[in-house]
Amino acid sequence: MNDQASKDATGTGSVAGDTPVTDEEIFRGHEGGKLSAAATRPIAQPRDLSVAYTPGVAKVSRAIAEDAALAERYTWAARLVVVVSDGTAVLGLGDIGASASLPVMEGKSVLFKTFAGLDSIPLVLDTTDVDEIVETLVRLRPSFGAVNLEDVSAPRCFELEDKLKEALDCPVMHDDQHGTAIVTLAALRGANLVLGRSMADQRVVISGAGAAGVACARILRAAGVGDVVLLDSKGIIHAGRGHLNPIKAELAESTNTHGLRGGLADALKGADVFLGLSGSTIDETLLESMADDAIVFALSNPDPEVHPDVAAKYAKVVATGRSDFPNQINNVLAFPGVFRGALDAGARAITERMKIAAADAIVAVASDDLAADRIVPSPLDPRVAPAVAAAVAEAAVADAVTG
Amino acid sequence: MNDQASKDATGTGSVAGDTPVTDEEIFRGHEGGKLSAAATRPIAQPRDLSVAYTPGVAKVSRAIAEDAALAERYTWAARLVVVVSDGTAVLGLGDIGASASLPVMEGKSVLFKTFAGLDSIPLVLDTTDVDEIVETLVRLRPSFGAVNLEDVSAPRCFELEDKLKEALDCPVMHDDQHGTAIVTLAALRGANLVLGRSMADQRVVISGAGAAGVACARILRAAGVGDVVLLDSKGIIHAGRGHLNPIKAELAESTNTHGLRGGLADALKGADVFLGLSGSTIDETLLESMADDAIVFALSNPDPEVHPDVAAKYAKVVATGRSDFPNQINNVLAFPGVFRGALDAGARAITERMKIAAADAIVAVASDDLAADRIVPSPLDPRVAPAVAAAVAEAAVADAVTG
Repeated sequence: MNDQASKDATGTGSVAGDTPVTDEEIFRGHEGGKLSAAATRPIAQPRDLSVAYTPGVAKVSRAIAEDAALAERYTWAARLVVVVSDGTAVLGLGDIGASASLPVMEGKSVLFKTFAGLDSIPLVLDTTDVDEIVETLVRLRPSFGAVNLEDVSAPRCFELEDKLKEALDCPVMHDDQHGTAIVTLAALRGANLVLGRSMADQRVVISGAGAAGVACARILRAAGVGDVVLLDSKGIIHAGRGHLNPIKAELAESTNTHGLRGGLADALKGADVFLGLSGSTIDETLLESMADDAIVFALSNPDPEVHPDVAAKYAKVVATGRSDFPNQINNVLAFPGVFRGALDAGARAITERMKIAAADAIVAVASDDLAADRIVPSPLDPRVAPAVAAAVAEAAVADAVTG
Repeated sequence: MNDQASKDATGTGSVAGDTPVTDEEIFRGHEGGKLSAAATRPIAQPRDLSVAYTPGVAKVSRAIAEDAALAERYTWAARLVVVVSDGTAVLGLGDIGASASLPVMEGKSVLFKTFAGLDSIPLVLDTTDVDEIVETLVRLRPSFGAVNLEDVSAPRCFELEDKLKEALDCPVMHDDQHGTAIVTLAALRGANLVLGRSMADQRVVISGAGAAGVACARILRAAGVGDVVLLDSKGIIHAGRGHLNPIKAELAESTNTHGLRGGLADALKGADVFLGLSGSTIDETLLESMADDAIVFALSNPDPEVHPDVAAKYAKVVATGRSDFPNQINNVLAFPGVFRGALDAGARAITERMKIAAADAIVAVASDDLAADRIVPSPLDPRVAPAVAAAVAEAAVADAVTG
């Protein structure tokens, strides 16, 4: 499958001719797993054993028993991000179960380490019961410092994240929601800077009301986008539609200010931005009716809603989730820095302000080299995570969620 | 405290003059924690990201979804040992809670890596309910390959280990029980080789009927020790004593064949071996009545039941748990190799035969240089874990617990 092709997209927007990644290369790259545990200091001498294990370790355990705050300093837990999944919505593969989701979670842990210097381990769960997942993490609370929820199906993911935030006094973020939302907001700001537009005047049409679609709708509203119109498989979400789940009912109130009804064709008429998060392709003729110089983010993977070359016929700026086209909207621009900043600040939660600060920081890194095909930095740009972390930490302090 | 002193005891039995380990050194050695997560392959190029994460990882997840056995090959889980504790019986410190137990568990994970090349992570639990701990690990089952239970108080530890073995199809071992039992058995065999004795003729008196005492009683009986007499805080355990918990009632049947009653003085009269696992000191006069050329293992830490120099007045062979005297009985001789062997063989359980094979392998490593002050190898002897692993794997196959 050519979808697996990986090409150079390191921030320049140029697509260098790299040979496609082969299946053999992928499986070889997973042999034995991608993650490993390591000692921070070697055990080579009897003395090392006496320091790291008995009898020395007893002093450290006793110290923590007397002052719980010392665990933060003398164990790895306070800066350990657990990547948690039940395997119910893995990439585009759906409900493939916990074990099959593990390679994704290991990959995520590797990215936390690579980009943010945070230790991270995957915890995949053989239960899809929201309360059981919450209960499990509550029991394990002394083992970790933050929770990155991953690939949990909607609408369960909303309930699960809410309950975890309520139950745990540490940063919790469902990355499929907020990672995507942060990078999408950054990309839209980048596109608007290039085009000289204002978010306040724009109508953004979001196709797909799963984890990413819902979170994008919320962050775009919070960030001041003029109007957001959200569609699920039944069409435009509006207050008059029956049988809306609580999440969609809430969004019907806060989006679609003009009360649009119908399908994607109705929503896109005169729209400024199309944000595809649906997992299905669309007919290019739908883009014809958008406002002039439109923006198209076709983020479904591996197949974007519309091919970027086709979208370019109707849009001034086009982005996808793929590494082989310019403007890759990749969550890795957000989550390492978000968690690093939250943990650096000792934050007990991840707030809306922290997420928007993360998006601003991504835009700031991109801003010295902005162009229609460079609206976001490269996923591998080493400047991004530290910039995001600093901005998030500052926002955490401003929101008084630290300490 | 001089108990923290660490001196050279690398298998020669000689005690070289090393400076004592200071508190400052211990706390410095724990700064930021002792464990770290690492990528097995670097993420440096866009290509690396396409292999380890999207889109490449989807191929691996899909492959595991279609054939669950592939998780063993393409994730870290199958060879990951979770070190699990509820912090109820931490070293000599007692019930200090999960968070304070974490430095011990991190240390254990480091030792798994150092001696057996196994990845390992600590999972400490904010519950002491046996069924909740079992339930938690059952839910997390796809995340790991084996369970090392640690520092769980008796008698809960027996019930917890039994239930975990029942609920999980992977190696489970409570190290405070079986690690200690394996190394103690090896040490007794080593001492008997030095003294030309036979276990079948010996009476072993075990002071302390906690996790280690119970497991030692069981393995020594299984390995053919003539008689074992076990004492708890109320004295000798015998079938006529009332109010015995189920574990002790079972041991009352399988030990103390001559029906001894009374206290330690009664038990030690004419005994061949004293095994101290009580956490309290004893009066040296108690040793006077033992058989000639006795064996004394005073394993309480940091204070042995009797000082080794004092014990030497009555015994031909003396061992402790301390690194600053010869014959250190340290669990690290057993657990890394036991788990490595079990996982290498694909074992679904750790059987009695596997434990006894581990003890035999430890004796075999020591046997080329046996002496009264060299009855076991040094804890840092790099030959031990591979020898134990090979023997355990072979025993697993013999017991047909693999595959």
